[in-house]
Amino acid sequence: MLNTKRIQNAQNRMKQQGIDAYLILTHDDYIYFFGEDRYQPRAIIPAEGLPLIVTFAGEEDEVRESLGVEDVRIFGSVGQQIKDVVQVMRGMIGKKEKLKIGVQMWFGTPAFLLNMFQRANPIVDVVDIAPVMDELRMIKDDSEIALMQRAAEIAGIGMETAVKTLRTGITENEVAAEVEYAMRKAGGHGIATPVFVNSGIRSGWLHGTASDKIIEDGDLIVLDLVPRYKGYCANLCRTFVIGNPSAKQAEMFATYKSAQTAGIEALKPGAKMRDIDTVAKKVYTENGYGEFYVAGISHSIGLGFEETPAPTIHPGDSGIQIRDGMTVTVGHPVLSVPGTGGVRLEDTFHISDGTAEPLTVFPSELVLSNLA
Amino acid sequence: MLNTKRIQNAQNRMKQQGIDAYLILTHDDYIYFFGEDRYQPRAIIPAEGLPLIVTFAGEEDEVRESLGVEDVRIFGSVGQQIKDVVQVMRGMIGKKEKLKIGVQMWFGTPAFLLNMFQRANPIVDVVDIAPVMDELRMIKDDSEIALMQRAAEIAGIGMETAVKTLRTGITENEVAAEVEYAMRKAGGHGIATPVFVNSGIRSGWLHGTASDKIIEDGDLIVLDLVPRYKGYCANLCRTFVIGNPSAKQAEMFATYKSAQTAGIEALKPGAKMRDIDTVAKKVYTENGYGEFYVAGISHSIGLGFEETPAPTIHPGDSGIQIRDGMTVTVGHPVLSVPGTGGVRLEDTFHISDGTAEPLTVFPSELVLSNLA
Repeated sequence: MLNTKRIQNAQNRMKQQGIDAYLILTHDDYIYFFGEDRYQPRAIIPAEGLPLIVTFAGEEDEVRESLGVEDVRIFGSVGQQIKDVVQVMRGMIGKKEKLKIGVQMWFGTPAFLLNMFQRANPIVDVVDIAPVMDELRMIKDDSEIALMQRAAEIAGIGMETAVKTLRTGITENEVAAEVEYAMRKAGGHGIATPVFVNSGIRSGWLHGTASDKIIEDGDLIVLDLVPRYKGYCANLCRTFVIGNPSAKQAEMFATYKSAQTAGIEALKPGAKMRDIDTVAKKVYTENGYGEFYVAGISHSIGLGFEETPAPTIHPGDSGIQIRDGMTVTVGHPVLSVPGTGGVRLEDTFHISDGTAEPLTVFPSELVLSNLA
Repeated sequence: MLNTKRIQNAQNRMKQQGIDAYLILTHDDYIYFFGEDRYQPRAIIPAEGLPLIVTFAGEEDEVRESLGVEDVRIFGSVGQQIKDVVQVMRGMIGKKEKLKIGVQMWFGTPAFLLNMFQRANPIVDVVDIAPVMDELRMIKDDSEIALMQRAAEIAGIGMETAVKTLRTGITENEVAAEVEYAMRKAGGHGIATPVFVNSGIRSGWLHGTASDKIIEDGDLIVLDLVPRYKGYCANLCRTFVIGNPSAKQAEMFATYKSAQTAGIEALKPGAKMRDIDTVAKKVYTENGYGEFYVAGISHSIGLGFEETPAPTIHPGDSGIQIRDGMTVTVGHPVLSVPGTGGVRLEDTFHISDGTAEPLTVFPSELVLSNLA
């Protein structure tokens, strides 16, 4: 269902920013305004007036049914959406010389598509829609928290499955297959990032995925899960060892756990994103791992698995203040030590009434047999 | 393993084009040159000299092991890859005024990342690497065909699972869960696009995905699978009805099947991409569906699920000629009729010795009980 209040909020902010319309090209903002996902998500929200769905002619009946409202314009030809958008833009210009059109500048907006749009629309100045959307998306309402809670439960089911599946001799991909399947069966709608099963030498990766590598006794195994429920994400990461961890592995795990705990304690309204880093880095340093600290331990999460504030992508975001209603993770970067591997623990929190309420719930234990 | 021949071929073409280096930011070209995937894939291939992997400091050991060669430079700091790349660019400039750096301009290259790179590197002119890479990627070698064959087998296993799973009362998502799991268990490395299970009114979508919609008797169900094996894709799409199809559904299916068959017959070296459309559209028109024809029935496939030639994305590609060594699909767009729904059949072919050899093999039957 179309969310009239969110559309009005966005329109008010567009008028303040002098933006004539928001051209939606990505799933997250499409879901945010229209309550359902589409492939491809294409819509135009003018600063004033009705939103307009740009779609394929064969989809019109279905769009009308799913939006559940009459007052939406639907515009679409047979497979020529770029031309359709150009035509809408021409209709909007009126007596203006140029239109100021907002577009999301994030991972889902490819450079070539923006170039094509710009070439096809010389009457348009493209601007970043972030000043309109960041503020709206950053503070979650109750309905969003409910969806993220469900995503967090699904992540927990995925991690439980991982714990049951992990054994010496299995491949990372086989573990990922079971985890993905369990999360799907639990009602999840796919994953926002590939399931990480980074084991042994691969545990030191900053990012990751599952591979055909066989898991061996003594491997550090980093498992990172970001399932989606109705578009919304939760992030849960744990690190395990099969068998007995080495003293070094145990020390790294204890360091990470203390750093994450310190970060969570600092996660309060008024603190800045960088303050979470400061306390976590202090723990690394005190334990002799300061040189391995990767900045950006916390980021926002919601319809995007990493959304503003996201200091590892936009360093300036580290100055953004924590506020009630935000949802953030703590534990984003790996503690990676050449020759040993990597450790990570990540959880998702809802800032509510001044405290960080965990959405993800799963024990933090290095030794797998303590859990199984 | 690093592929020296492919790197040399690319370097020769870069020199012809006056491009100083190719900055790799996407999985497909990273796999093409280095034989393995990485998250994140970041490398620089200069027009002359050794390729350079830009990575996180904690990953260096693992990169060296996986590439299997000594003569590669590895460059990386703790989580500051943009700064690392800037430093490499500065080192390359020598006495030149500007560097001409190629970047892939496709779905995997976000606009904001390119803008950040451009701002951080005022000494660089960014150009599209397509004139270097398209020609190399378009013609597959035997090792690539072997991987696509494996992906095609995995797609067949997925479709078999769909046929066994489909029944009245099940949701699209439940079907997708079983299909994804079966493809993973068969050795697949994830999927290039979400598994489409578009049923009933949703079958008319131009694109698609699975949803929580319950499948009903008499629904048209479009199933589109694009599994990956070691990065390589194969595309298999079928349409089914549970129970007895209506006369209209049967007519649409017969029309699509004839159009696809005509397209496959036209798929020969020397033909242009648009010739495949011409014969397929003729079949639609003869059967009274001309107005519903969506142009772009054929596109190339490989490390990308849709790569050059891809006429629905770049209309100019419809003039590209079919040649031996290409891998293309036939059956890309849906035949969508408002009030009835949609039908699609898509298969993947290898053009070899003048003929189109099917890589995907699965019966084309509308009535599900004829298969189960």
